Parts: sequence; structure tokens; C-alpha cells
Amino acid sequence: MGQTPPKSPLAPDQFPDLPAIGGATFATASAGVKYKGRTDVMLAVLAPGTSVAGVFTKSSTRSAAVLNCQDKIGGNSTDGAAILVNSGNANAFTGHYGQTSVLELVSGVASIADVPAGRVFTSSTGVIGEPLPHDRILGVLSDLSGKLDGGGMADAAQAIMTTDTFAKGAARTISVDGTPVSIAGIAKGSGMIAPDMATMLVYVFTDAQVEQSALQSMVSELNETSFNCITVDSDTSTSDTVLVAATGTSGVDCGANTAFRDALGEVMTDLAHLVVRDGEGATKFVEVAVTGALSDAEAKTHALAIANSPLVKTAIAGEDPNWGRIVMAIGKSGATADRDLLSIWFDDILVAEKGWVSPTYREEDGADVMLKQDIPIRVDLGLGDGTATVWTCDLTHGYITINADYRS
Amino acid sequence: MGQTPPKSPLAPDQFPDLPAIGGATFATASAGVKYKGRTDVMLAVLAPGTSVAGVFTKSSTRSAAVLNCQDKIGGNSTDGAAILVNSGNANAFTGHYGQTSVLELVSGVASIADVPAGRVFTSSTGVIGEPLPHDRILGVLSDLSGKLDGGGMADAAQAIMTTDTFAKGAARTISVDGTPVSIAGIAKGSGMIAPDMATMLVYVFTDAQVEQSALQSMVSELNETSFNCITVDSDTSTSDTVLVAATGTSGVDCGANTAFRDALGEVMTDLAHLVVRDGEGATKFVEVAVTGALSDAEAKTHALAIANSPLVKTAIAGEDPNWGRIVMAIGKSGATADRDLLSIWFDDILVAEKGWVSPTYREEDGADVMLKQDIPIRVDLGLGDGTATVWTCDLTHGYITINADYRS
Repeated sequence: MGQTPPKSPLAPDQFPDLPAIGGATFATASAGVKYKGRTDVMLAVLAPGTSVAGVFTKSSTRSAAVLNCQDKIGGNSTDGAAILVNSGNANAFTGHYGQTSVLELVSGVASIADVPAGRVFTSSTGVIGEPLPHDRILGVLSDLSGKLDGGGMADAAQAIMTTDTFAKGAARTISVDGTPVSIAGIAKGSGMIAPDMATMLVYVFTDAQVEQSALQSMVSELNETSFNCITVDSDTSTSDTVLVAATGTSGVDCGANTAFRDALGEVMTDLAHLVVRDGEGATKFVEVAVTGALSDAEAKTHALAIANSPLVKTAIAGEDPNWGRIVMAIGKSGATADRDLLSIWFDDILVAEKGWVSPTYREEDGADVMLKQDIPIRVDLGLGDGTATVWTCDLTHGYITINADYRS
Repeated sequence: MGQTPPKSPLAPDQFPDLPAIGGATFATASAGVKYKGRTDVMLAVLAPGTSVAGVFTKSSTRSAAVLNCQDKIGGNSTDGAAILVNSGNANAFTGHYGQTSVLELVSGVASIADVPAGRVFTSSTGVIGEPLPHDRILGVLSDLSGKLDGGGMADAAQAIMTTDTFAKGAARTISVDGTPVSIAGIAKGSGMIAPDMATMLVYVFTDAQVEQSALQSMVSELNETSFNCITVDSDTSTSDTVLVAATGTSGVDCGANTAFRDALGEVMTDLAHLVVRDGEGATKFVEVAVTGALSDAEAKTHALAIANSPLVKTAIAGEDPNWGRIVMAIGKSGATADRDLLSIWFDDILVAEKGWVSPTYREEDGADVMLKQDIPIRVDLGLGDGTATVWTCDLTHGYITINADYRS
């Protein structure tokens, strides 16, 4: 078992102040699922009538908890809802035992939170293939129910961490005709991160009132440009889950409110960026923006080929403005490219165009961009109107140390 | 610029004795393209009537030399042929200048080797995006033509190396009705290795007599199970080239000879394995065999998902029998899998079956397999008859050191 890696150099200075969300209460506990001396379970209980929308990993070996959640998403309800998350064990690839664990946890939470089993959503994150000691979690449920508190979201962000080096939160508050509507979310994830989706658990809460199907469309669409546009190592988890809960306690219907939609998108994108900033071993945050592709889908294919290339990512780790590797990644992506039409920029430095290095490019200018902590790379293919932006980090010795050592 | 990494621990003890191939002569020289104090150009001159077959990278940003070779492959000729290769500079993404360099080299070789320009094949390997100093190569051509020798293939293997830590060669000799027919080949490549194909240059020579179209079919087909089944880092080069030349001097027609075809396949597979054994930073050679898939193509998708997964490759580097990551890789591959039907073996140790760890599996047995240098991983999907075998290496600190440091 590896030692806890040091806090990512890309971490924000501090965890943000998250607004309390009316109708949402939180509690955490130490169940000793695997880790000692830290919280590893979080419970959120949500007001009657809360809409819950979700998107999940597309892995064909997805975990029992994910399968259970997927079955439950959809439709409106006047009942309350609850979300239970444990870290330390993913309860994935654990056969029938895994399903039993989920059912036991769902039933326990339904009982103490007084909500129907069909409105209890669970997630598990951590090691794959080992039985989840669900009795330990059941043992702390009554303790959890006694501690539920509207201000507990920051503690919840801590409890869901695995290899994360910092807790992740983001929030926005908008005003709708003078009434404040808040959105706050937490996330975990640092490795096994790739579209669809990251090894990632994300929980977003809002006091907006949004009918479930409208919320689901919004979340599914915003997911495409946030969590489905990040990659750390191209590996996809068996457990990825994004749940968004709208309690409605603000009394403001935001189902068709574009300001709300934009704010929700910002919270989701902020959380996605935080996951990349905690990418295992990351020392650089890299934005890859592709324009001029034949379609948005082709632009994303190119962008992800660049963002997933070990050779591009190691060059960035070495602060080497090695644009030849970007040319290579575009070439291998499988999407359309014309060598002689594409242009490459590091930040605002034009590096290559017309099939060769730009006559204005000076190596020292490229090297200066590489010294930054946040590195923008832009590629224009010169073919059409397709665009995409994805985010990744560099590939360093730290990634190897964490993953050759840690059994995740 | 990084220092030369130490010789791969997976390297064979010595370079094999390659048989001389009638009708094929070789010479090497130090042109100082980039490296100092070593040979960096090799010339092969082939007898009149030699058939030349080739397969090339599918990159959309492929190099000028690759484009030029592709145009020339096909058809029989009574003329001789020549192959010129330089290391140190890939002449890729060098605009119109790159094409000029290729034409200059082709014309120079045609003149000194007395073969038509349409029968001169060139390759360049090394840094991308810098102009090839082709004058330096032209300057050594007459020296090369004076040194051509049937026994020069081992030296040629040295001259084409870039980040390679050892020279790569393989050979077979078969007997056809009492007449010996020989096949010998050399390869370079250690990073930017993925199907289609590796960052890889491969030259195979035989004295068999094979009509060009038959040779091309044979090479294209054998390529699918050799060079297109290896991956080091999932990155595809702009310069990958496999050329196979049949001089015919044995007088034995092998166009429909299955023993010849098998031997050619063995030479190609041996060379493919050597490229993986020189994978940047590699300490383990990993064979991933997938059976029971819905089709061979689906088996290959699963096998490559496992072989390309950074999390699988770092676990192997850490000698951790982390089969959960193999489950993850199968899940993310996009090909069909049923969690509860798949089985996983490390060597002959059954690790997982029926959606969970096997009841007979003991962690220490898995750990023992991981201590080996050559690690066989087998997955049966329990769905159909599709099979595929691919080869890769582990992902180590050495890979990061080489690629964060070396401008390839």
C-alpha cells in the first residue's frame, strides 16, 4: 500500500464556502470500511419532492451500486430521497454478494431516513473485487441519522475521498426575480479518469425546483461538456456516478431558466476541473481546445487523442514544447486532418502552420508557456466548424509511484 | 536531451547470427544527421527482380518518406531496388522542404546504386518537425556504395536505432525440396508504439522468389498478427514502415509455400516482440491473450484495452496482481462483455470467474506470477469463438524519465 501522496500542487488554496442548500442535510462517520482514522461514509437526506437526475459509467463491468442507481433514476416523486456513499471499497466485481450489499444498505438507509427504498441511491469507491463489509456501514447508520445537518457538505467532500489529495467543492448562487437559488456540489476522483466518465463520484445539490425529466436532460447535456471532457489516464472506472438533486425549497421553478442551467454547468465544469487538478501525480493543468474540425465529434476525437497521449503528457511534464508530439497525436486520432492545413498554438504563441513550424515561432517562447502551471494548447484543423475543449494533466513520476504501489 | 537509457532488462543476451541473403547487400555510415560518434545511415541494395512489399502507418500526418514509399509499392520489376534509412531526424511535418529532401535522397541513391528512382525506398526516424539535413546524407552516399556487403545487416540494425537500447534482428532458414531459403530482418522502435503500427521501422529480406502481389498479401496479413498486435504507449508514429524484399536468388518460388509464409510470420513476430522488449522503461514483457469473444475483432479490442491501460501497466510494474484493473479495462473497452461470464488467469492461475474472485485463487499465487519477467495474462469472455493475442510492456518510471526528457 502506498503512502498518501502529498497535496497536488494544482489544488486551490482552500475549500470553498459552500452555501447550505435548503432541504438537504448531510452527515459523515468513520465506519472503518478500509481506512483507519478518517471518515469514510457520508449520508445526504433530501426533502420530500426532490428531483434526482443522474449519469453513470458506461463500463460493461459496472458496479452493483451503479446498476441499482440506474434502475431508480427517472420520474417525479413527492417522497424524500437519500444518498449514501462509502470510500475504501468499490463493491465492484463482487458477484451476487455485491448486489446483496447494495440491497442491505438501501434498506438500512430507507429505514433510518424514512424514505422509500426506491429513492435511496448508493455509491461505493475504492478497491475492486473485494467484498464490501456492509455491516460496518450499517453499524454507523443510526449515528449518521442523528448528526444530519445542513452545513455538513464540506465534511461529506472529505468522507468520499480515496486517492484524492484534496477535497473538492464548487458552488454558484443566482438570483431569480430577487429570490436566491443556490447550487453546491462535491466530487471525488483523481485516477482511472477518462470519458465516459472519470473514476469519479459527483453529488450536486440545489434548492431550485426542477421537474425530474427537465433536470435529467439538463444534466445529461451538461455532462458532455464537463465530466465527459476530462481525462487523466484514459482509464474508465466501474463506478462513475454523477447525481444532481433539486430539492425545490427555494420555490423557484428553474426547469427552463437559462441562468440556472448556466450556473449548473459552471458548477459541474468547476468540479470536473478539480478532478483533473487532483490527477494522480499531476503538476500541470492542460486545456486542449480544438477548432476547425469537420464536426464537434471529430474535434473531440482529436482533442482527446492529444489529451490522452502519453508522449504529449510526458513532454508537458518535462516542460518541453514538443509540438511534434501534438502533430503525432492528431495524426493517430482517426479523425480527419490535413497536415498542411492545421495550426498549433501554445497559449497565444503560433507554433506550427502549413505543414511545418511557423516562421515566427521561437523555441524559447514555447518553452516559456510550458513553464506555466496552466497550459492552454489550441489546434485549428482548417477544415470546418467543429469545436471541442477537453482538460487533462501531465504524466509524471508521481503517477507511476501512486499506481505501481497503490491497489485501487 | 536525456542521457542514453541503460540496455533494457528484457533484451536478448546477444544479437542473433543473421544469414546472408543472396542478392542483398548493406552498408552503414556516420552522416552526423543528429547523433555524433555513431552510424546513422544504412543503405541496402537489392538484386534485379527483387519484389518489395510494404505496410505503413495510417497516421494522417505521416511523413514525406512514408508517402513516397506508399506511392512506389506494387507491381513486379526486373530492376534492382534500394532502401536508404537515416536515424536522428524523422523528416515529418517539415512541409514542402520534407518532400524535397526525400526526392534529393531518392535521386542520389538511384544514381549511386544504379536503380530507377521508382525503386528507391527511404525512411527517416527521429525528431519530428525539424528539417532533415539531407546534404549530410548525400555526402556519405558514395562512401556507402563502396562498402556494400552481404554480411552488413547487423551493422544496419545498429544504424537505424534512435532511443532503442539494443539492436534488433531475427531470422529463419527453411528447406524447400532440399534448397535452403533464408529470411532475415531488422527493426527499430521502442516508444510511440501502438497499432497501426509501432514507431517502428522494419526491413526483412529473403532470397525466396515471390511475385510482388503475393508477397504484399502475405505481408499485409501477417502484419495484423505481429506488428499490429504490439503496443508500448498507445501512440502511433508518423513514420512507421515495414518493408519486405524478396530477391529471388534462391531460385525457389515461395509464393504459395506455407512453410515460407509461417517462417516469415515468425520473423515478423520475433521482431515485433523485440520492439516491445525494448519498450521505453520496460521491465516486464506481457502477453495478453483473449478468447471467447464475439469475434476476433472484439477480442483484439479487449486485449488492446488491457494492454494500453496505464493502470494495468503500472500495476504490473509494481508486481501487483491487481486483477480488478483488468476487469476495469475490459469494462471500458467498448467491446461486448458480461461481467458474470468472464474468467481471468495470470499464467495458469485462475484468478476470477463468475463475476468475482475465484474461490481457488490465492493472492500469493498471483503475486508469484507477477515476479516473472514474462507475464502471460489470459481472459476468456465466455461469449463466442473470437480470439486475439497482443503484447505489451509495463509502464515504469523509466518511461517518464525517457519521455519527459528526450525530444523524439
